[in-house]
Amino acid sequence: MKVQPATPGAKRLLYGGDYNPEQWLHAPDILQEDLRLMKLAHINVVTVGVFAWASLEPQQDHFTFDWLDRVLDGLEKNGQKVILATPSGAKPNWLALKYPEVRRCTADGTREPQQGRHNHCMTSPVYRSRVALINAKLAERYARHPALILWHISNEFGGYCYCPLCMAAFRQWLEARYQSVENMNQAFWSKFWSHAFGSFDEVTVIDKSIHGLELAWKRFMTEQVMSFIEVEKAPLKKFTPHLPVTTNFMGLYDAYDYPQMAQTLDVVSWDSYPHWHDGACEWRTACQTAFTHDIYRCMKPDRAWLLMESTPSNTNWAPISRPKRPGVLRLSGLQAIAHGSDSVLYFQFRKSRGSYEKFHGAVVDHVGHEHTRVFKEAAALGAELGELGVVLGGGTSSQVALLYDWPNAWAIAQAAGPRNMDKDYAATCLAHYEPFWLSGIAVDVIESTRDFSGYKLMVAPMLYMLRPGVAERMQAFVAAGGTLVVTYMSGIADENDLCFLGGWPGPLKDLLGIWVQEQDILGDHQKQSVVPVVGNPLALPAVSQARQYCDVVELQGAEALALYGADFYAGKPAVTRRRTGKGTAYYVASRNDDAFTLALYSHLIKDLALPRAIPGELPPGVTAQRRSAESGEFIFVMNFNEVAVEVPLATAQYRNVLTNRRVKGALPLAGFDAAVLQAV
Amino acid sequence: MKVQPATPGAKRLLYGGDYNPEQWLHAPDILQEDLRLMKLAHINVVTVGVFAWASLEPQQDHFTFDWLDRVLDGLEKNGQKVILATPSGAKPNWLALKYPEVRRCTADGTREPQQGRHNHCMTSPVYRSRVALINAKLAERYARHPALILWHISNEFGGYCYCPLCMAAFRQWLEARYQSVENMNQAFWSKFWSHAFGSFDEVTVIDKSIHGLELAWKRFMTEQVMSFIEVEKAPLKKFTPHLPVTTNFMGLYDAYDYPQMAQTLDVVSWDSYPHWHDGACEWRTACQTAFTHDIYRCMKPDRAWLLMESTPSNTNWAPISRPKRPGVLRLSGLQAIAHGSDSVLYFQFRKSRGSYEKFHGAVVDHVGHEHTRVFKEAAALGAELGELGVVLGGGTSSQVALLYDWPNAWAIAQAAGPRNMDKDYAATCLAHYEPFWLSGIAVDVIESTRDFSGYKLMVAPMLYMLRPGVAERMQAFVAAGGTLVVTYMSGIADENDLCFLGGWPGPLKDLLGIWVQEQDILGDHQKQSVVPVVGNPLALPAVSQARQYCDVVELQGAEALALYGADFYAGKPAVTRRRTGKGTAYYVASRNDDAFTLALYSHLIKDLALPRAIPGELPPGVTAQRRSAESGEFIFVMNFNEVAVEVPLATAQYRNVLTNRRVKGALPLAGFDAAVLQAV
Amino acid sequence: MKVQPATPGAKRLLYGGDYNPEQWLHAPDILQEDLRLMKLAHINVVTVGVFAWASLEPQQDHFTFDWLDRVLDGLEKNGQKVILATPSGAKPNWLALKYPEVRRCTADGTREPQQGRHNHCMTSPVYRSRVALINAKLAERYARHPALILWHISNEFGGYCYCPLCMAAFRQWLEARYQSVENMNQAFWSKFWSHAFGSFDEVTVIDKSIHGLELAWKRFMTEQVMSFIEVEKAPLKKFTPHLPVTTNFMGLYDAYDYPQMAQTLDVVSWDSYPHWHDGACEWRTACQTAFTHDIYRCMKPDRAWLLMESTPSNTNWAPISRPKRPGVLRLSGLQAIAHGSDSVLYFQFRKSRGSYEKFHGAVVDHVGHEHTRVFKEAAALGAELGELGVVLGGGTSSQVALLYDWPNAWAIAQAAGPRNMDKDYAATCLAHYEPFWLSGIAVDVIESTRDFSGYKLMVAPMLYMLRPGVAERMQAFVAAGGTLVVTYMSGIADENDLCFLGGWPGPLKDLLGIWVQEQDILGDHQKQSVVPVVGNPLALPAVSQARQYCDVVELQGAEALALYGADFYAGKPAVTRRRTGKGTAYYVASRNDDAFTLALYSHLIKDLALPRAIPGELPPGVTAQRRSAESGEFIFVMNFNEVAVEVPLATAQYRNVLTNRRVKGALPLAGFDAAVLQAV
Repeated sequence: MKVQPATPGAKRLLYGGDYNPEQWLHAPDILQEDLRLMKLAHINVVTVGVFAWASLEPQQDHFTFDWLDRVLDGLEKNGQKVILATPSGAKPNWLALKYPEVRRCTADGTREPQQGRHNHCMTSPVYRSRVALINAKLAERYARHPALILWHISNEFGGYCYCPLCMAAFRQWLEARYQSVENMNQAFWSKFWSHAFGSFDEVTVIDKSIHGLELAWKRFMTEQVMSFIEVEKAPLKKFTPHLPVTTNFMGLYDAYDYPQMAQTLDVVSWDSYPHWHDGACEWRTACQTAFTHDIYRCMKPDRAWLLMESTPSNTNWAPISRPKRPGVLRLSGLQAIAHGSDSVLYFQFRKSRGSYEKFHGAVVDHVGHEHTRVFKEAAALGAELGELGVVLGGGTSSQVALLYDWPNAWAIAQAAGPRNMDKDYAATCLAHYEPFWLSGIAVDVIESTRDFSGYKLMVAPMLYMLRPGVAERMQAFVAAGGTLVVTYMSGIADENDLCFLGGWPGPLKDLLGIWVQEQDILGDHQKQSVVPVVGNPLALPAVSQARQYCDVVELQGAEALALYGADFYAGKPAVTRRRTGKGTAYYVASRNDDAFTLALYSHLIKDLALPRAIPGELPPGVTAQRRSAESGEFIFVMNFNEVAVEVPLATAQYRNVLTNRRVKGALPLAGFDAAVLQAV
Repeated sequence: MKVQPATPGAKRLLYGGDYNPEQWLHAPDILQEDLRLMKLAHINVVTVGVFAWASLEPQQDHFTFDWLDRVLDGLEKNGQKVILATPSGAKPNWLALKYPEVRRCTADGTREPQQGRHNHCMTSPVYRSRVALINAKLAERYARHPALILWHISNEFGGYCYCPLCMAAFRQWLEARYQSVENMNQAFWSKFWSHAFGSFDEVTVIDKSIHGLELAWKRFMTEQVMSFIEVEKAPLKKFTPHLPVTTNFMGLYDAYDYPQMAQTLDVVSWDSYPHWHDGACEWRTACQTAFTHDIYRCMKPDRAWLLMESTPSNTNWAPISRPKRPGVLRLSGLQAIAHGSDSVLYFQFRKSRGSYEKFHGAVVDHVGHEHTRVFKEAAALGAELGELGVVLGGGTSSQVALLYDWPNAWAIAQAAGPRNMDKDYAATCLAHYEPFWLSGIAVDVIESTRDFSGYKLMVAPMLYMLRPGVAERMQAFVAAGGTLVVTYMSGIADENDLCFLGGWPGPLKDLLGIWVQEQDILGDHQKQSVVPVVGNPLALPAVSQARQYCDVVELQGAEALALYGADFYAGKPAVTRRRTGKGTAYYVASRNDDAFTLALYSHLIKDLALPRAIPGELPPGVTAQRRSAESGEFIFVMNFNEVAVEVPLATAQYRNVLTNRRVKGALPLAGFDAAVLQAV
Repeated sequence: MKVQPATPGAKRLLYGGDYNPEQWLHAPDILQEDLRLMKLAHINVVTVGVFAWASLEPQQDHFTFDWLDRVLDGLEKNGQKVILATPSGAKPNWLALKYPEVRRCTADGTREPQQGRHNHCMTSPVYRSRVALINAKLAERYARHPALILWHISNEFGGYCYCPLCMAAFRQWLEARYQSVENMNQAFWSKFWSHAFGSFDEVTVIDKSIHGLELAWKRFMTEQVMSFIEVEKAPLKKFTPHLPVTTNFMGLYDAYDYPQMAQTLDVVSWDSYPHWHDGACEWRTACQTAFTHDIYRCMKPDRAWLLMESTPSNTNWAPISRPKRPGVLRLSGLQAIAHGSDSVLYFQFRKSRGSYEKFHGAVVDHVGHEHTRVFKEAAALGAELGELGVVLGGGTSSQVALLYDWPNAWAIAQAAGPRNMDKDYAATCLAHYEPFWLSGIAVDVIESTRDFSGYKLMVAPMLYMLRPGVAERMQAFVAAGGTLVVTYMSGIADENDLCFLGGWPGPLKDLLGIWVQEQDILGDHQKQSVVPVVGNPLALPAVSQARQYCDVVELQGAEALALYGADFYAGKPAVTRRRTGKGTAYYVASRNDDAFTLALYSHLIKDLALPRAIPGELPPGVTAQRRSAESGEFIFVMNFNEVAVEVPLATAQYRNVLTNRRVKGALPLAGFDAAVLQAV
């Protein structure tokens, strides 16, 4: 599968990261030294200008671009390309104090003081116009700068503003969406608790007991940020129509609907900060990272994505953050490439001396020289990535889709009941992703609104909210021969979070051939047992343990593959299957242990003959991911264990692209080691 | 003991619950189906109109009663009576936005936005007049409606408002109560921390370091809610003098003094939501529920009370809430009847589709039909209750009083020291209630201001605050032959929370014959041992463990029955007895384990020959409660264990009213089963 | 070493405490009884007037001193001296309501209501003038009162005000300190996150992400409180130039820089409330108290300090507070004297009847008489202290300095990273203090700005911030023969919290002969091992366990004495030594277990022949502290174990001053017992 590179005409993987020369203008020797060190580290791109507004426009309409001119020219001469950020991520003091409207209001209507960052109103006409102006200045000035390859809009958009301007815009949005107050009241089920609105003007606050209202607010805020991005983009596109734009996302951050937001961007990118070495299983941390990488790989499936930030060592904000162990900088960089990134970028190149992030890992530490473990590992990876330009344009094709929906995450999180602790939507999706990752099988993690054709297997964990058409398209998917796995907590509410009448799982009842009569919610230390039916076609293991969620299922066309072992619903189905059309639909009624989930998908992998990147079983904690480019197919084999492993290769023969050596029979990998294989 | 039925002329126990047709006016088929389902479930009453203000008065002075006319007429024709709620529990948006004064202010004076519910000012003249108006409209319109049997005022009153109107009313209240600033300063001990007030006008905030002020505030707020209820009642009583009024209380909720509030009501009712199946011992959950039922039984001892809300299955708001296991819907319904309720009512009849309570258990689930376990159990209980109308008018007589005072709970909670964690006033009362419940002995749980005559045994756990006259009445109770048990943390402060001078337990020193010189406060993992004196008349067990509170007691007329085993006060009394007049007064100086408490009361039960509902010991987790009506005495025998038991019946012979079968020798009860016996 | 007594011409140790007659003016019999009880308890001083403003000036400009006249005269006649408090610790209602500016604003600018205490603005001209006026009235009236011996300014200064007046004063302070906005921006590293200020006027909020700004704020607030104290002092010094002033500090409370504040005072005093008997090791509680006592002993090294408050029994505000066990009142009183206090003072003499502190321990309980354990113990100590006037003027000389810096504590606490949990600066200093305390070796706990000469050993745990000149003075200290111990997390930032460039530990790199390349931060359950180099000169124990912080050290002139045993930096130095000049500098790279720390200092104690108060080893939990007066050298030997011990005395012979008996060979001490020895 071929994809467009993230930046046009890229010949090399991008390597580098955030660079803040504005903090060091008083020390020209350090700026000079930076250029030497970048070269030494094989850095070919840096992100400049994030949070530089106060340095670019120290007073209103007084612009100081000269220092940036020098920085960009110096980088260009030194061989680095530049990702240029618009400075809206933090507003300067003069702007915030002169125009209070640019500061946010909290949910109770209080105007925030000027502090921190990420706290400007998205609606404020003043802020929009000031951003448009400085963006225009930047774009005009650097439109033809040979170093410039990408626009980085603002930084990690986040949070909400509840100011009068935002609330007024929200009311307009509501009116546009619902047309009449009656429609809105119906969608909000607002006669409950006497909440019915007499007019749109009566919407003055985001009442969390009205779930439809809260959903509407998040949808509005997503669109408001998109509209803000359009304001940012307009001058950039005017002066540099040839350059792509991105903004850096934050994993599964849920204030906005990221897949929808991605529509305003040319390229998606994200900031990845896994909590390595925190005492949890290392490979699970890796698997979680892979899951998110795959979300971004699929968010714009036709174009490579960018790893915009990562730390070369530790973070400064986690309660405890250990430096990356030797090899992990390289391994986590290669992991991003394996899942389709065209870059490995760090926050930050040089550690700042003061304030909040002075202890965040950097390529160049306060010591200032290159003789540190971290610098050496960064430089070594830089050199290695020089060999990997061949993967540019390479994508990943998958026969497995796993559904992950932002609005579904919202609805589950905001629901009062049926369980209010450990809802764990994302963790549940991850648990269903893990067996594939351990098997080296690619998974597309996609929204439920995406095209389902082309997949053999679709997994829909906790798909509480069924958006319009999803049930019908699932039906069609199975009818056409697809295999579908749905779990507990699915098919409960529509896009407005109004429950389906007629019984769970709502519009999926017929497809699955079941009715969920009620749902047992287990306490933290309570368990249920799941007993496979003898001779069940999934070859499920003897007995497994369920926890937290156990649906009480009635068969209405499906067959039971496993039964509950205890309590008043002992003997009721815990896993069901319905064969319909050319396909099969499974229902997993309880939250099961990992052994169960692994057994389930191991069977389906075999049954559906899903293709593995490497034939045969992988050692635990090792995965293999493919990237298929014009120049060939590259298999990244990665050992996320601290100890060495041997990866059996069956009869295939490969070349390790990183070492240019032949490999056959078995691939030995040291702890935290990786290889990139190409079949020969 | 005969009591008046909760609703005049009742022939049947009330069975039904909250019903919100206003949420379904767009779906006449569903409203029609509701009538069929109610009949099927043997429902004879529904509560209508809670939170219906926006549906009844969608704009100011524009009333829409037609839908309610149709609903009430339909119910009447279908055989259901109606409890009609006044709609003040949630204010409509137009009212809240047009008249900001109806919205509450928080303790720091901030006006709340319009959201949630239960958040109107009790003082606001505007709110009072709007409530009076709509109540008058309702009362006038439905005064003669044959379905109407009871007024349900507002819903679960709660919380405080600190707006200027409330604070002004509070200052007037203070002046009326204390007459002079000097009196108030003395009652507040306000020279401490220079808090002395120069005038009543200087009371501008509820300063939590002035305990007398905080107490005064809670007393004022109680009276303010009562005054608000009077405003609600006036039009109801005008148009329907024949109908009783209630409001639904929330167990031991402590913002207001419920027993005092009950004086404004004709009937008391409460909403009972025990946390069944949460991993704690099931029968302790039942015992806690029984304790609260007994508080409500005694709050208006001459009239039956109503179980106004309970869930047919799960709640939606608890962190984790499991569906009621098979049998528990029936068992907990019968438990309420056993303790004197004339009703079993549910929140809710039909589950709402959207917003905050869409996952709260209901008789009719989203599936909409009767073929669910929950519906079937509800219908079966409905049928069974049809046989139990015979208990109407039946009350319970008790020879044991346990004191539980709201102002005492306030004073203990707000005190700084002597212990600031795990004060557990209610739990301590419950621990002293449990031995009686396990023995099938009725306990009146009453305020200390109530008449003490007629009891043989009085238990006063942690009676920190002695209100005026209480010590004297206790003295008289013992002098007249009563047995009194007082514990640690009693007799410390007067009604203003000013400590008694002269030593603990204040005015009870002479009666108890002791002086508590000091109090040891143990850490969470620290223990003290309590060693019975050899040959002690209570036959206390060998050695028991005390925790948290250990008074250091000096004998001043009493004798020691048990001694501390360790620490610097080893050998000092841990339990004392003083015989005085015709009675006996015990002091329990430490917080003891359950074995101790059970032994103590087992002895007193035997010694005082307290009557059991069933002769002989009951199996653990089983209780028996009597209700004595004109038609006879009915003994509810209830098994709160998940497993079956046999209840020995000695030589008595009974008829099980529910099955109409004879029982003798032993009563077998399945897990969560119950029987209603009548001696034959 | 001779010191000036805390109060001029003192002949006796001060014994007594807080006394609040204004709470009892309505009960003259109680006031009379107080005098009798004070005499009985050997009380010779009481602190009067704390929080008495409302009683002294009940309305503006209306003063009522008559009751205070009577109280002071009565005390004088009864033999008690008086510490007179200025009343500013709590403002009266009339003042707070008439002049809102005297009430504080919170960090978000909200004006606080009038409640609680300790909540006046330090900047308000109104408050300053009202305080000056009442202080002048007090000083003028009682200037010649024979009972008056000391002024107690306000009470436990604490907290911040962010009102417009304070913010304006802060901006002036910033301008005075930094001269130009450029300098300030550089010190704040404020180009980070676009925080650069265009003018001083733009500083409108204390942004916690700008660490330099937060530091500046704490420095400003310290100076603002000092300036407030100067306002308080002016009238006192005018009318009573002969009397010293103090204010009561709160241990290591860190809102202000206490050592700096102490410069405005004649005498330092503090309120000591250790959490005895809470289940933790008793002697560690004692050691922690000793550490703080030593801080105050050294804060004004030429003058004795005062124990201003302590509880005779329990506190009322801790989650759990146990009464002091028999002997502990005496032991903790003697402990203060041993560490240089001239007083043992209690909060409070008589327990108040109402409000927040009614359950705080007192010499006289609510019972009102002297027949309580607590009163008896207090009276016995009073008698005993009568024998100890000989220690007046006696100081302590030490050869060990341990550095504890308030601004360092600030900087560590406010840092984001490298570790955000369990930073534990104070606890780490305490861990390094403990071996000396266990050995009976005096330690001066001093600021890093103090003179280092005269010490043999200096310990600098976690000296993250190196203030100007400190590194140079450490260098000189070692060059001159001193032994220096520095730990992980030292030498990282300058006085503005800007990190040193050139590598950790900054300006101490050369002195220590090391470079800390990076720092491993361990998770809560993670460990590292520290393996001594064979034959290391410190005779370190076999292997010890490090946790939380492990520096990865490179030798640059030092030698390794112990190495890490595991992880990627196994074999790197964990302890280093560099001999330079005439001295030695050690670096302890990890947070080690107590066994390691004890072994380290045991060696240094031996090596440097540091003098012990008692020759030879002390039993665990026993310490000995010397106080050297003109009349001789007094050795306080204190057993903080609950059980009895024998303290070996080698060949020396002593007299126990408290019993006037000879002691030799061994000193037997009961649990919680103490002796005061003088060599004979």
